[in-house]
Amino acid sequence: MKLGMIGLGRMGGNMARRLMAGGHEVVAYDRDEEAVKKLAAEGAVAASSLDDMRGKLVAGGDGRSIWWVMLPAGEITETTVETIARDAKAGDVVIDGGNSFYKDDVRRAKALAEKGIDYVDVGTSGGVWGRERGYCMMIGGREETLTYLDPIFETLAPGRGDIPRTPYDRPEGDDWRAEKGFIHAGPPGSGHFVKMVHNGIEYGLMQAYAEGFDILKGKASDKLPEEERFDLNLTDIAEVWRRGSVISSWLLDLTAAALAKDEHLDHFSGHVADSGEGQWTIDAAMEEKVPANVLTASLFARYRSRVEHTFGDKVLSAMRFGFGGHVEIPQ
Amino acid sequence: MKLGMIGLGRMGGNMARRLMAGGHEVVAYDRDEEAVKKLAAEGAVAASSLDDMRGKLVAGGDGRSIWWVMLPAGEITETTVETIARDAKAGDVVIDGGNSFYKDDVRRAKALAEKGIDYVDVGTSGGVWGRERGYCMMIGGREETLTYLDPIFETLAPGRGDIPRTPYDRPEGDDWRAEKGFIHAGPPGSGHFVKMVHNGIEYGLMQAYAEGFDILKGKASDKLPEEERFDLNLTDIAEVWRRGSVISSWLLDLTAAALAKDEHLDHFSGHVADSGEGQWTIDAAMEEKVPANVLTASLFARYRSRVEHTFGDKVLSAMRFGFGGHVEIPQ
Amino acid sequence: MKLGMIGLGRMGGNMARRLMAGGHEVVAYDRDEEAVKKLAAEGAVAASSLDDMRGKLVAGGDGRSIWWVMLPAGEITETTVETIARDAKAGDVVIDGGNSFYKDDVRRAKALAEKGIDYVDVGTSGGVWGRERGYCMMIGGREETLTYLDPIFETLAPGRGDIPRTPYDRPEGDDWRAEKGFIHAGPPGSGHFVKMVHNGIEYGLMQAYAEGFDILKGKASDKLPEEERFDLNLTDIAEVWRRGSVISSWLLDLTAAALAKDEHLDHFSGHVADSGEGQWTIDAAMEEKVPANVLTASLFARYRSRVEHTFGDKVLSAMRFGFGGHVEIPQ
Amino acid sequence: MKLGMIGLGRMGGNMARRLMAGGHEVVAYDRDEEAVKKLAAEGAVAASSLDDMRGKLVAGGDGRSIWWVMLPAGEITETTVETIARDAKAGDVVIDGGNSFYKDDVRRAKALAEKGIDYVDVGTSGGVWGRERGYCMMIGGREETLTYLDPIFETLAPGRGDIPRTPYDRPEGDDWRAEKGFIHAGPPGSGHFVKMVHNGIEYGLMQAYAEGFDILKGKASDKLPEEERFDLNLTDIAEVWRRGSVISSWLLDLTAAALAKDEHLDHFSGHVADSGEGQWTIDAAMEEKVPANVLTASLFARYRSRVEHTFGDKVLSAMRFGFGGHVEIPQ
Repeated sequence: MKLGMIGLGRMGGNMARRLMAGGHEVVAYDRDEEAVKKLAAEGAVAASSLDDMRGKLVAGGDGRSIWWVMLPAGEITETTVETIARDAKAGDVVIDGGNSFYKDDVRRAKALAEKGIDYVDVGTSGGVWGRERGYCMMIGGREETLTYLDPIFETLAPGRGDIPRTPYDRPEGDDWRAEKGFIHAGPPGSGHFVKMVHNGIEYGLMQAYAEGFDILKGKASDKLPEEERFDLNLTDIAEVWRRGSVISSWLLDLTAAALAKDEHLDHFSGHVADSGEGQWTIDAAMEEKVPANVLTASLFARYRSRVEHTFGDKVLSAMRFGFGGHVEIPQ
Repeated sequence: MKLGMIGLGRMGGNMARRLMAGGHEVVAYDRDEEAVKKLAAEGAVAASSLDDMRGKLVAGGDGRSIWWVMLPAGEITETTVETIARDAKAGDVVIDGGNSFYKDDVRRAKALAEKGIDYVDVGTSGGVWGRERGYCMMIGGREETLTYLDPIFETLAPGRGDIPRTPYDRPEGDDWRAEKGFIHAGPPGSGHFVKMVHNGIEYGLMQAYAEGFDILKGKASDKLPEEERFDLNLTDIAEVWRRGSVISSWLLDLTAAALAKDEHLDHFSGHVADSGEGQWTIDAAMEEKVPANVLTASLFARYRSRVEHTFGDKVLSAMRFGFGGHVEIPQ
Repeated sequence: MKLGMIGLGRMGGNMARRLMAGGHEVVAYDRDEEAVKKLAAEGAVAASSLDDMRGKLVAGGDGRSIWWVMLPAGEITETTVETIARDAKAGDVVIDGGNSFYKDDVRRAKALAEKGIDYVDVGTSGGVWGRERGYCMMIGGREETLTYLDPIFETLAPGRGDIPRTPYDRPEGDDWRAEKGFIHAGPPGSGHFVKMVHNGIEYGLMQAYAEGFDILKGKASDKLPEEERFDLNLTDIAEVWRRGSVISSWLLDLTAAALAKDEHLDHFSGHVADSGEGQWTIDAAMEEKVPANVLTASLFARYRSRVEHTFGDKVLSAMRFGFGGHVEIPQ
Repeated sequence: MKLGMIGLGRMGGNMARRLMAGGHEVVAYDRDEEAVKKLAAEGAVAASSLDDMRGKLVAGGDGRSIWWVMLPAGEITETTVETIARDAKAGDVVIDGGNSFYKDDVRRAKALAEKGIDYVDVGTSGGVWGRERGYCMMIGGREETLTYLDPIFETLAPGRGDIPRTPYDRPEGDDWRAEKGFIHAGPPGSGHFVKMVHNGIEYGLMQAYAEGFDILKGKASDKLPEEERFDLNLTDIAEVWRRGSVISSWLLDLTAAALAKDEHLDHFSGHVADSGEGQWTIDAAMEEKVPANVLTASLFARYRSRVEHTFGDKVLSAMRFGFGGHVEIPQ
């Protein structure tokens, strides 16, 4: 199929490549002309603007232009979708493959539907490995639209590969796509909603490993009496857990690789960023009145990693001085 | 009454003074001779050793020597109790007024009971303000022993004062002492158990205020768009909450005083210490299978305040680099 | 002064009474005619509608009508403010004394300012005790408007009373009102923002006590070996902590009163409601990137109290069955 | 090699089978005679008592008897190890393959070392799948002893299999065993310590998934306005996440299988058990002063799942009634 890819960064560029490798025709645009040139050299049709892209999508197309927006969530995605929609025709499809807030999808889909334009939101997991392994995709939109787009998604997805089948027949009514690595999650917005919760879980899983390795490392610390210490080899431990343990996972594979390179992880600063999805997941939990202590604590650990001291810590010290005359001195 | 006070630090010294002011006779001992001299100058009988104290307690006494041990929890308290017990007589009373682990009390009380010696554990709250305000005491031991010691506890306790009476008749069977600021909590160990939970709660209360003030202060931070910021006066806020609000408390009084002196609390380092009681409270919760998320998070916030970065933070950064190519740079 | 009180529920009715007792003239309106009649019998001027109130505020007034809206946050407050504003004149003052979301205040204040109408948001703490003790108020609005309204707020506030002064001179630039139990927090919205954080803290404080008493009670539970149990008297403990301990507070006073009535609290269901403020506080923390584990855990404990089992619990059971063949049977 | 297996339950029986299939000779004992008979029918040498086993291990052995104790942690393991040690000879090896507390291992190893007996603690992960997939093992003991026992561990372990190698050369000094699915963690106790932390992490991972699925399911709940709901197919979602997503793991595989069987998990009660390791992990974290909010919250979620209401919930309700007149009614 033919589609326009807007945004040729780490994600968009590699998705375009995987699509071209799968026989699709990609019209490519980015504000960075170099990125466009580079992809054109690999076989894409270069577009110099959204207008230019429109012409190139219509020419020789099947009458439905497909626009894949792969930009940072927020204002840039918002205005790009608006610009595309302004001159789009009924039947055209706008895909937001970024990390938009699902409520923005719901709103945009409604606005575009009034003009007969289909809006599809694709939550994508897989990171920098996706080009090679395929992208796991959670998709919101109308079933009719997804059916139309399935060839594109099948190319991007990992496919069944050598991942063992779940040892039960999948029930009637389940989505055949799931085993290939993508799903129709529901109406517009649901794709990004599921991806958002995916990231919330991701934070929780990561923090569980982080705390565990912290405790393993701390067993050698001088906070313990010398005779109670173990000097454990974290590289060995991560490696062995990959093999037959209950906690094997892809995140553990990555941890094992990092520890094999540098057991002390000294070249990492320990300032841990978070994207919007962790926060939105907690918002969703609160709207639904679902207790989510682990996901929240994971997010807060990242906030905490980025400041030296909280003002709250000083409030504690001030109280302790107030009732006990304790003077808090750095240890 | 006559009692020996062993340990004349911030707590023991002031308790001795309050007791003498209440008409009791105090024999005072500390490894620091200067501390003994100072208290002797204020009317105490100086003792140069535990042996010396023994003689001075027996002389002119009623046959039961009372030893109040006011030392740091752990080895020093342990050996002091052992030393006293070695030469004590049936009917003598050993009081541990420090912050011992309640299971140590249970063990010691059992050992001393075999020799007919009474062991009493007193958990004490009130900090440096106790000499003036009186000490809130939670006491473990035999009722008969407490009855004997009540004159001492009544002197140390705050008494009814101007604190309003709880607006219900206290039920039959409740302890008359509670309204005077001390209680017979139960058998040996129970005094320190109740005090331990008191401190666990204290950590939780403190952290609740700390987080709240953090959020108030953060409302002026440049993490928010300029038009969403409020530059709030924390001193005013702490002060107003003392008056008629649901969250008024003594800890808030202390916070208000600290903020009135320095709204930014700049002279506090933000390294917050914890004593054993917070940890023991969580141990008790786990033994009883009681979920205690708030008390635990409060304790962990203190641990976290004392390290620049956790190893766990680096594990997170390493994973993020692994799947997303994210490089974590200090912000 | 003269003001209109709209909403004569538990809060609005008592505030009107306190105002009248302080010499102010209250025009009273509620959808419930009985409530209006009752207050009129106590001295208020009855209004049969907002229009009727308008006439009665203008007549004999100083040219500025004061409307105090004391209704549940949300749609009813929104439409009432709109209705009042439609026919209000420049200089009139609309006060939202309910629990509105502070971002709604910011928006409304901006809209009303265009017509020269002043909008003031008042966060109020004190609950059912406020009529007698006075209401602690955190107020957002223009300083000029507050100066105009101060006589009203002084009447509602607890005043200095017998609460000890904070033992430092209050710095220059602090609000003189704080010691009387109300403050000018900042621009519109800031009053409800501070009240919101107040409630967030309140949840944290309450949960800290709740967990502590849970651990005290659990010490008698059969999850412990019999010889490790203590059968503690929670009524005594709550009472003694009120007197000289570090954790004394008004919330503890209430707990002591409840336990004195029924130590087992058997007539409480244990389903704990939450209002919007707890959730908004966490939202604010996330916007500011402030870790708030304790406040969040407190909110989630309430969510959890209202369901028998989470679906998450079943997911855990399903996994345990999957890897270990464990069958989870109710205990 | 020849070894005695004591305890033929789900774990011990299957390990014996895997060992026999690997060419080792197993002398088998269990208090349940049927279990012994059954294993004897599959090729094991039946032992009718520990004494009987001793004779059968010595006969035709290499002079070092190997005892593998595979019993529930606690008293039964303790007394079995004592009984074996009483008549063991220098050079004999006692292996505790259960889930003992690592401090018990340290103590036992020391006691046995005085008689020249080697003590080895093996933490084992893999659950009911281990017989087929192999057991992931974390081992504490002397290196010399492990070298002697390696043939046994190699048979039990999963081996390299088709799990991709970590994409870095393992550094000098790392344990060659790790890639085969077992490691020499360190001195006695370290095997169970590492396994304990493994289980702590496991709790955290499980709870992260549990909360995520809870939020997905809650998106259809009537706590949300109807137009904001999504009715998501959890079976599809679990399946798609197995394929190319960042959160793929073995625990997710199990979840997908469970959801494929019953999307609502209705036949699970939601009462979730915990074994000692989760609690011990938190104890270790506290000893080392490592903040572990996620692991702790995971453990507490299990405690909470097993009670209808906490007493703490009632304390909250009592306070709310106290300050606000709120009556908590089940929703």
